[in-house]
Amino acid sequence: MIDKNLIEAQNAALAGAVQDDYAALGAKLARRGVDIETLTARADAFGVAVPSWGTGTGGTRFARFPGEGEPRNIFDKLDDCGVIHALTGATPTVSLHIPWDKAPAADLKAKAQSLGLGFDAMNSNTFQDQPDQAHSYKFGSLSHTDKATRQQAIDHNLECIEIGESIGSKALTVWIGDGSNFPGQTSFTAQFDRYLDSLKAIYGGLPADWRVFSEHKMYEPAFYSTVVQDWGTNLMIAQELGPKAQCLVDLGHHAPNVNIEMIVARLVRAGKLGGFHFNDSKYGDDDLDSGTIDPFRLFLVFNELVELENTPGLDLAHMIDQSHNVTDPIESLMISAMQIERAYIQAALVDRAALEGYRASNDALMASATLRAGFQTDVEPILAMARLRKGAAVDPVATYRASGYRAKVAAVRPRVTGGGGGIV
Amino acid sequence: MIDKNLIEAQNAALAGAVQDDYAALGAKLARRGVDIETLTARADAFGVAVPSWGTGTGGTRFARFPGEGEPRNIFDKLDDCGVIHALTGATPTVSLHIPWDKAPAADLKAKAQSLGLGFDAMNSNTFQDQPDQAHSYKFGSLSHTDKATRQQAIDHNLECIEIGESIGSKALTVWIGDGSNFPGQTSFTAQFDRYLDSLKAIYGGLPADWRVFSEHKMYEPAFYSTVVQDWGTNLMIAQELGPKAQCLVDLGHHAPNVNIEMIVARLVRAGKLGGFHFNDSKYGDDDLDSGTIDPFRLFLVFNELVELENTPGLDLAHMIDQSHNVTDPIESLMISAMQIERAYIQAALVDRAALEGYRASNDALMASATLRAGFQTDVEPILAMARLRKGAAVDPVATYRASGYRAKVAAVRPRVTGGGGGIV
Amino acid sequence: MIDKNLIEAQNAALAGAVQDDYAALGAKLARRGVDIETLTARADAFGVAVPSWGTGTGGTRFARFPGEGEPRNIFDKLDDCGVIHALTGATPTVSLHIPWDKAPAADLKAKAQSLGLGFDAMNSNTFQDQPDQAHSYKFGSLSHTDKATRQQAIDHNLECIEIGESIGSKALTVWIGDGSNFPGQTSFTAQFDRYLDSLKAIYGGLPADWRVFSEHKMYEPAFYSTVVQDWGTNLMIAQELGPKAQCLVDLGHHAPNVNIEMIVARLVRAGKLGGFHFNDSKYGDDDLDSGTIDPFRLFLVFNELVELENTPGLDLAHMIDQSHNVTDPIESLMISAMQIERAYIQAALVDRAALEGYRASNDALMASATLRAGFQTDVEPILAMARLRKGAAVDPVATYRASGYRAKVAAVRPRVTGGGGGIV
Amino acid sequence: MIDKNLIEAQNAALAGAVQDDYAALGAKLARRGVDIETLTARADAFGVAVPSWGTGTGGTRFARFPGEGEPRNIFDKLDDCGVIHALTGATPTVSLHIPWDKAPAADLKAKAQSLGLGFDAMNSNTFQDQPDQAHSYKFGSLSHTDKATRQQAIDHNLECIEIGESIGSKALTVWIGDGSNFPGQTSFTAQFDRYLDSLKAIYGGLPADWRVFSEHKMYEPAFYSTVVQDWGTNLMIAQELGPKAQCLVDLGHHAPNVNIEMIVARLVRAGKLGGFHFNDSKYGDDDLDSGTIDPFRLFLVFNELVELENTPGLDLAHMIDQSHNVTDPIESLMISAMQIERAYIQAALVDRAALEGYRASNDALMASATLRAGFQTDVEPILAMARLRKGAAVDPVATYRASGYRAKVAAVRPRVTGGGGGIV
Repeated sequence: MIDKNLIEAQNAALAGAVQDDYAALGAKLARRGVDIETLTARADAFGVAVPSWGTGTGGTRFARFPGEGEPRNIFDKLDDCGVIHALTGATPTVSLHIPWDKAPAADLKAKAQSLGLGFDAMNSNTFQDQPDQAHSYKFGSLSHTDKATRQQAIDHNLECIEIGESIGSKALTVWIGDGSNFPGQTSFTAQFDRYLDSLKAIYGGLPADWRVFSEHKMYEPAFYSTVVQDWGTNLMIAQELGPKAQCLVDLGHHAPNVNIEMIVARLVRAGKLGGFHFNDSKYGDDDLDSGTIDPFRLFLVFNELVELENTPGLDLAHMIDQSHNVTDPIESLMISAMQIERAYIQAALVDRAALEGYRASNDALMASATLRAGFQTDVEPILAMARLRKGAAVDPVATYRASGYRAKVAAVRPRVTGGGGGIV
Repeated sequence: MIDKNLIEAQNAALAGAVQDDYAALGAKLARRGVDIETLTARADAFGVAVPSWGTGTGGTRFARFPGEGEPRNIFDKLDDCGVIHALTGATPTVSLHIPWDKAPAADLKAKAQSLGLGFDAMNSNTFQDQPDQAHSYKFGSLSHTDKATRQQAIDHNLECIEIGESIGSKALTVWIGDGSNFPGQTSFTAQFDRYLDSLKAIYGGLPADWRVFSEHKMYEPAFYSTVVQDWGTNLMIAQELGPKAQCLVDLGHHAPNVNIEMIVARLVRAGKLGGFHFNDSKYGDDDLDSGTIDPFRLFLVFNELVELENTPGLDLAHMIDQSHNVTDPIESLMISAMQIERAYIQAALVDRAALEGYRASNDALMASATLRAGFQTDVEPILAMARLRKGAAVDPVATYRASGYRAKVAAVRPRVTGGGGGIV
Repeated sequence: MIDKNLIEAQNAALAGAVQDDYAALGAKLARRGVDIETLTARADAFGVAVPSWGTGTGGTRFARFPGEGEPRNIFDKLDDCGVIHALTGATPTVSLHIPWDKAPAADLKAKAQSLGLGFDAMNSNTFQDQPDQAHSYKFGSLSHTDKATRQQAIDHNLECIEIGESIGSKALTVWIGDGSNFPGQTSFTAQFDRYLDSLKAIYGGLPADWRVFSEHKMYEPAFYSTVVQDWGTNLMIAQELGPKAQCLVDLGHHAPNVNIEMIVARLVRAGKLGGFHFNDSKYGDDDLDSGTIDPFRLFLVFNELVELENTPGLDLAHMIDQSHNVTDPIESLMISAMQIERAYIQAALVDRAALEGYRASNDALMASATLRAGFQTDVEPILAMARLRKGAAVDPVATYRASGYRAKVAAVRPRVTGGGGGIV
Repeated sequence: MIDKNLIEAQNAALAGAVQDDYAALGAKLARRGVDIETLTARADAFGVAVPSWGTGTGGTRFARFPGEGEPRNIFDKLDDCGVIHALTGATPTVSLHIPWDKAPAADLKAKAQSLGLGFDAMNSNTFQDQPDQAHSYKFGSLSHTDKATRQQAIDHNLECIEIGESIGSKALTVWIGDGSNFPGQTSFTAQFDRYLDSLKAIYGGLPADWRVFSEHKMYEPAFYSTVVQDWGTNLMIAQELGPKAQCLVDLGHHAPNVNIEMIVARLVRAGKLGGFHFNDSKYGDDDLDSGTIDPFRLFLVFNELVELENTPGLDLAHMIDQSHNVTDPIESLMISAMQIERAYIQAALVDRAALEGYRASNDALMASATLRAGFQTDVEPILAMARLRKGAAVDPVATYRASGYRAKVAAVRPRVTGGGGGIV
């Protein structure tokens, strides 16, 4: 989709600057006893999954303002994901959402293979009603008071597993909107019990090498209570289900002021951290591009991941989960992938021996400064070099714009209108 | 729409209990030196406007689950509003939203008159694109960087005033979603200047006896910054525009933990409080039924309004603004109107002389207890008696259900599907 | 301390009104199928513990403004607690804080017995340094990096158990301020491991019929991270320690907007809810009088407790934990005890059969209304009658003021100056 | 206090690395069309005031854990401030707090001059009672219900102006803790009127070339309402007082999630931004070291200041206001001064012409990326070079530690014990 020659030509113009900056950063890091190549190797190996639905323009309950060349189906979406990976070299997998992305397995696999992509976790959808659906999810899905509705939601998740198996996925992510809008509307305990029963049925359908990720969220679309409202409830679920169940952390799903990096540490210790839905937020589940609102928070999350990376059994699934309402989704996803990678490399260059020493002596100021030194280092030369070496774009956004990809697909993908606007 | 005989029959069964409870409460209040009839007269005179769009089922960015018998147009909406007023006796006016409610003025007036309804403030809409619109509001409306887009939004607001004039409205409410999703996306100051320029053009089009209400909101649909983000900015706007401009307070539009009743007091003192958009919220702009999440907060707002009710020039516009996602909108609007009225009457029975005495002597405990005594009084007998006397329903929800209204309109209003779901 | 004759005289003047209001409420409840005497029996049996330190005037980090007649020691504090119980009949036990309340066990028991009081949970203090202390808690206590400091903190807790045993207490409450002020200052995981090791040593010292309550808190005095930051971590602790370990919920220790009643439900389901520290808050751990800021939240907590009251093994410890900065502490504690009792009785009168029916049919509006009906009922006549019948004061604050107790103790307890002001 | 030779020796060892990094950064910036020397000149000219009280160890309401060598009086504090300025070259002024820092003007001036320091804004204190005080501030100061108490507070502020005049200060900062702890305790409006009357009296006492800075804060030490609770009220105050009154923004004084940089922009537009109290916070008014919790937020504030720096009449007072509970205050203040300077220089290197272009074309992604490019640049070489050139320390903390200053003063300043602990 993106001409390799274009990437090479664009890179050629920037390669000199990349080499200079890389050398200067290498010298600076060497002074601190850090080998830049170790970091570049980390950057080279890094990957984060792209959500298929992230390639479309998102909206709010007030409106959706479509962009040009919106993907019409999963194959268009895979094309867009292929562009992102070709340019950033950092997004080797795609996460599908069922039923939105249903298609013959062979076609999906062939398409993905042709783009150098694989499939990450499957996502089920029981927060919307589909046209052909027997039972409505208006009042819940996996935790609904009605057994038939719960069974319908269970069956849908089992189908997601089945589809996932056919395309090489190894995990199912479950997020539901079930909850209540008014005090009294539901029994917290009975609703939770029903949810657990449903999840157990799904868990029973997991292949031996699969995992199920449960995702907590404080609120929305339910505005008084949500079944899996925080990591405490999420932990209870993962504990009750068994070893194949783990918790997924979405950075925008917590109460104001919450220390998310600490939750990450706790879940690792409990052996129940499964992975992340990356995005950024200022107010609620804003689903903004990763690292654009509070980049230090993203760094602190990766600091925990690097600090704990040798924890036995730790096997994390990293995924982006965002809503791109005012930008070209391909560009936003590239920015996010690079911001996430940036935070990871910054965390990786922290002098952990020094840090531990300061901690042991309660030298709060130098411990804090040591950690911050990682964040304050501009590691862009490392990321750029990793991309340059693997044939991705030194400046993915510029190369993407130079490619004219959006205009090309807009010519064949018909203009969409409206959507969104739940308040109408 | 609701048979008067039904109301009478339903009331007849409850009248005895109402009389008993009213007498008991009257005796209790008399002991405190409060004349119950004074409060009942207040209840009788109380009214809050219903938003036309509130009669439809709302949704979230994830989905909308329509109910039965959704109104097809403004005339159906007015029918529903008529039901609400007939049963509660507390919602004599309707607030229209343009372009959703556009219709010939004569028809609107005739319909409203037939239902005993009047028209409250007009609401403009520049947060969505209409099919026939020349310029998109994707990147803003009244504060857009493009002059032609701003002019389009101005013209729309001027048209709202024109329509309002033709049906007897006396105010325009302006709420916009303009803002930004990313740091840097917009210049806060330049955007605010453009917004003010646009509002000045609209202000210039206000008839002599009209007011314009500006509404602040912390976030959503913009997730990093919003032009009118809080009451401070709202105050600056109202000050810059002139005496016909006032601030509207929506209870769900503030930062977590904010003391809203204090904002009410400040705006009254600045001579700039125009009125309210009532609803309740736990997290963000949840738009839940008034008084269902934090009834004491609603009471404290009314406490300020009663304490300051003799402020010269104070003339408040009370309106409900909610999203009914899981209930019958007619029922939710009735509950809200009654909860608002309840808070008002509770505030009205506070012993203000005693309260002032405790304040003067810094007797915090007794001052607090004196205020709380109002809130802790169950004033339902007063509200029920006021309804009984004016021929509304003692128990509006029960009578509404007994009337079979929803089933009747569902038979003629076709079933709607889907909608919402901006994230798709 | 309070003349029985005074109480009787004061009650005599109010008894008529109490009888009238009680009869009227009884009639109203009877119409709903509720027997008022069942509720009065519940009120009669209700008790909440008073914290010994709550009888002194609290302060902030900016200043402390002492009141008159501040208790000089635990015996003065017990006198004050005796007054509270004599007047409210609702606070039969006192919770001690060590080392503040250290005294010979025989003296403590004799004093308490003379006042009709018993002892509730013991509270340890490792968030302050005592003059004679070998190791400072500046950088932590039970989770300190230094083993000797941790052992000192462990020993202190073991001593608290020992003291508690000697006076008939059956539980130890552990709250620590350990955490960090800067990212990087501490390893979340290592600090947590050290904390767990310390708690295990304390747990090992628990007598067979004792429990240990672990208390979570989002922040303060540590302002970046806190070891037991939320109920999720608290649950992990209680699970790891064993059956005698349970979680304590302080209503002011959560993130903004958090649904606390849901946490209560989850902890009950996990078999790990131990009890409460009651108070109210608007912003952080404000420690205001219970029920004075968000009475509906308090009601919703009790709604869960009543809904789940037949859960096998549920045995809750209710305690008030407040800071009285601008009121007479005795008055504030009486108000709080009565507000807590009020919320409990309101929750007890909810029509649970009707509620379950509405939940089963997803009638969100009526379920919500059914719950709210409990909260909207003014149950004061029930509380007053329960007090009247047991010889406590119908109007505890008025009778307390009439007694002149504060002036009497002020005459013998010397005036204290200053204190507080951590920022200086 | 710090040997110049030590600084030189320490710098000598680092100068080579500084030169290398400076050259590399200069080359990189040159590629972007930015002249590094322009930025270094900005860094050289930058200064922020140090609060005299910041040199002591702070505490919380739970406890205060003193450090070694705590300053005994204002002269010790000035010594410490002199050290900070000698090492960072960025803190040329000190802000005094009365009555804590009262001393003969000539002595203060002589001491400051000897250290190369000047005096910034004066701070009054009416949130604590002083031993000799006629009226208590327990229930308020400038807004107290009692006229004599208000007059006492007014007189104190007038005295602060007088002292300030004698030492060359040009501004008075007013922050009060007045408010209420319970709904009903105070009349919001009457209390605000009393506050304004008091401030007018103080305003009347301002010399011609002085300003008064009013500071808003959401809560604490009052936990239900605060007189100057947010910037909206602060703006009303500054407007009512007149041109010499301006608003001070403390970064830790806002509600959760609030967009502070937007408030900065609004206050500049209103002509009422006076300056800042810099610190960082995660939860409330945590008073942590600047830039240690959310460095991007600090950058965004400076982005507004740079964007608006040519606004006519803009004259900002920058001051640090922190509480150092677990670090050496001198070290924390140095870190903060450097973090503030860092944010300023990062904001200064943003390509504003490119930014405006992207804004004009609604290219949200590139506008955001352009702004972020400033933040992501590690400007430490510029700050280090500015310090090196002016004879300050390249690595202030390392040089400070090498100097042994703390041990030296600890030898002459007696050890302090305890303090704080308002909850006791």
